[in-house]
Amino acid sequence: MTVSSAEAPAGSAAGAGTRFLAEIREQPAALRRLLERAEDFERAAAELRARRATTVRMVGHGSSDNAASYGVYAFGLLPRWTALRDSISLTVYYGADVDMSGCTALALSQSGQTPDVVEYLRRARRAGAFAVALTNDPSSELAAVAEAVLPLCAGAEEAVAATKTYSNQVAALALLAGFAAGQGPRMVAALQEVAEQGADLVASLEERITSVAVPFAYAGRMFVIGRGVEFATAREIALKLLETCRVAAEPLTATDLAHGPVAALDSLFPVWVIASEDETLQAVLEASVRAREAGATLVASGTGAERVQGADYVLPVPAPTHPLLAPLLSVLPGQLFAWALARTKGLDPDEPRGLSKITLAR
Amino acid sequence: MTVSSAEAPAGSAAGAGTRFLAEIREQPAALRRLLERAEDFERAAAELRARRATTVRMVGHGSSDNAASYGVYAFGLLPRWTALRDSISLTVYYGADVDMSGCTALALSQSGQTPDVVEYLRRARRAGAFAVALTNDPSSELAAVAEAVLPLCAGAEEAVAATKTYSNQVAALALLAGFAAGQGPRMVAALQEVAEQGADLVASLEERITSVAVPFAYAGRMFVIGRGVEFATAREIALKLLETCRVAAEPLTATDLAHGPVAALDSLFPVWVIASEDETLQAVLEASVRAREAGATLVASGTGAERVQGADYVLPVPAPTHPLLAPLLSVLPGQLFAWALARTKGLDPDEPRGLSKITLAR
Repeated sequence: MTVSSAEAPAGSAAGAGTRFLAEIREQPAALRRLLERAEDFERAAAELRARRATTVRMVGHGSSDNAASYGVYAFGLLPRWTALRDSISLTVYYGADVDMSGCTALALSQSGQTPDVVEYLRRARRAGAFAVALTNDPSSELAAVAEAVLPLCAGAEEAVAATKTYSNQVAALALLAGFAAGQGPRMVAALQEVAEQGADLVASLEERITSVAVPFAYAGRMFVIGRGVEFATAREIALKLLETCRVAAEPLTATDLAHGPVAALDSLFPVWVIASEDETLQAVLEASVRAREAGATLVASGTGAERVQGADYVLPVPAPTHPLLAPLLSVLPGQLFAWALARTKGLDPDEPRGLSKITLAR
Repeated sequence: MTVSSAEAPAGSAAGAGTRFLAEIREQPAALRRLLERAEDFERAAAELRARRATTVRMVGHGSSDNAASYGVYAFGLLPRWTALRDSISLTVYYGADVDMSGCTALALSQSGQTPDVVEYLRRARRAGAFAVALTNDPSSELAAVAEAVLPLCAGAEEAVAATKTYSNQVAALALLAGFAAGQGPRMVAALQEVAEQGADLVASLEERITSVAVPFAYAGRMFVIGRGVEFATAREIALKLLETCRVAAEPLTATDLAHGPVAALDSLFPVWVIASEDETLQAVLEASVRAREAGATLVASGTGAERVQGADYVLPVPAPTHPLLAPLLSVLPGQLFAWALARTKGLDPDEPRGLSKITLAR
């Protein structure tokens, strides 16, 4: 396998990954579109408070569920509310009649068509929850079931693997939680800055990322380590690697690693570490020492990437003014790595085999 | 690699896996010990109800966290309470001051020594939660922090990879949820029967399991699919494969598979499907069709294993009288498969490299 340039690795079909890359690049613009709708989030947050619907039950599949992992921290750290990734099957398949008064049910679906997410929201509303949809399509079935619809503003996403949808979901959760905590304007300003930082970061990473990806051409498996707000990032990067590169990538918290999976590591089992400068950094650094001691090749990213001792590849990201927004930047190296690795392997990240954009599977 | 018999595969150290196997076999006896303490669970359930501490926040790492996945369904389906796997880092590292009144904080730790689980319980109690510990060691630091201590009764577990600890945690959650729902005696009787069914199942599987495991000697990765109550089983089987066999095994819900990971499958990427005869069966069967269409080798287990079309290996388990208890039986083929596969690969499942029984990592 020879890779002559970042533009046309041998083995790639002409044009493979162009939509995926275009949508990675478009994320700062998508974020700015979302911020133009900040008032919608302000209004919804006021309604959550007025109804005292302060336990937030989030549902979604794939990238949407990954964004919900972020929501646990956004709502926990800003308005100090309990937020959880709720079980869809408990409500939809088992028909458990859980009392959801005092709850907001927040359904995340790009298309607004995912059948069991729609059915969950219908039942949650019946069970007493304030039913909110976060979707690209305000005319979707999901929006019709909801009492309030929040716009995702990601625009049409043509690559099957989500990028701008995911990052706008994360930003939307930060906005809603920020307004719920009475810190809306500060959050909007911090997100504006993230859009600028993101645009610069994508431009500089594009130059470099193929040379980082090529040595992983034969890796069949990988762990992606994050903790706290960055666990969502770990899940999302792992999903991109599974979807677009056919790498068995598993997301783990820093502590999960020590509780079993570290035993599987060796020099042929690389580890991607997201180290962010926040309260979880020490735990992540300790996990990276364990991984290195097991012989794993380490890729370090995040605002604290340079703190990871002995990393083989370091992909730092700039620090946002609000540390809770770091995941919007730290996901970018992972998305670009997946794009570059897929092309290195001769795969088309725009249309992974066996996937379709709107998943009707239950 | 030649495997001459289930007793002594070539490449295994003498005695490798004897403790792991002994503890797999011991599970029915451990379950009976737990049932002798049913009154403790009855008393605790009464206290949860009396305090209206009906949102159950569960924490634990590794197998304990897997058992907590089961708790989401046990509490949701029996007393119809909201139960969640809470974020430890939100409370312990970020110091988020979430109001936990109306909550039970239920900490799961075999040793009662896991530092961040102990710290979580201390803070949850301060935040207004009713603090309950489920542990093997009533003299542990965790027990000292708790307001109520529930006995796990698993006895000393000598293999590093948990088996009887996990299954007694699952049974303990079923007991607590059963008593909370006013169905305690029925649950105790159903668990008694599961102990008998489990003993028979282990005996019959031991004969057969090595011949199933040998063809997977060179598999580096695997998906383990479950949904609903069996998602806990999928997580636990995947963890056993990671810990003892160095297989990159990832647990997925039936729906997760369709939302991305199916793209990674091929004929060298086996899939273990847990198909149980309950409301989630159709979703699991549809996922297994997708996996088979992608060329994956399929291992089917669970009470509905025989319903999985085209499975390469079928490991059925008997149906318990209470369908919610199926996970106590469906985990057994996975544990025994991990034992057999580790020995086939010349690994010692009693002492996986890099792991210790009590994990102090944060």
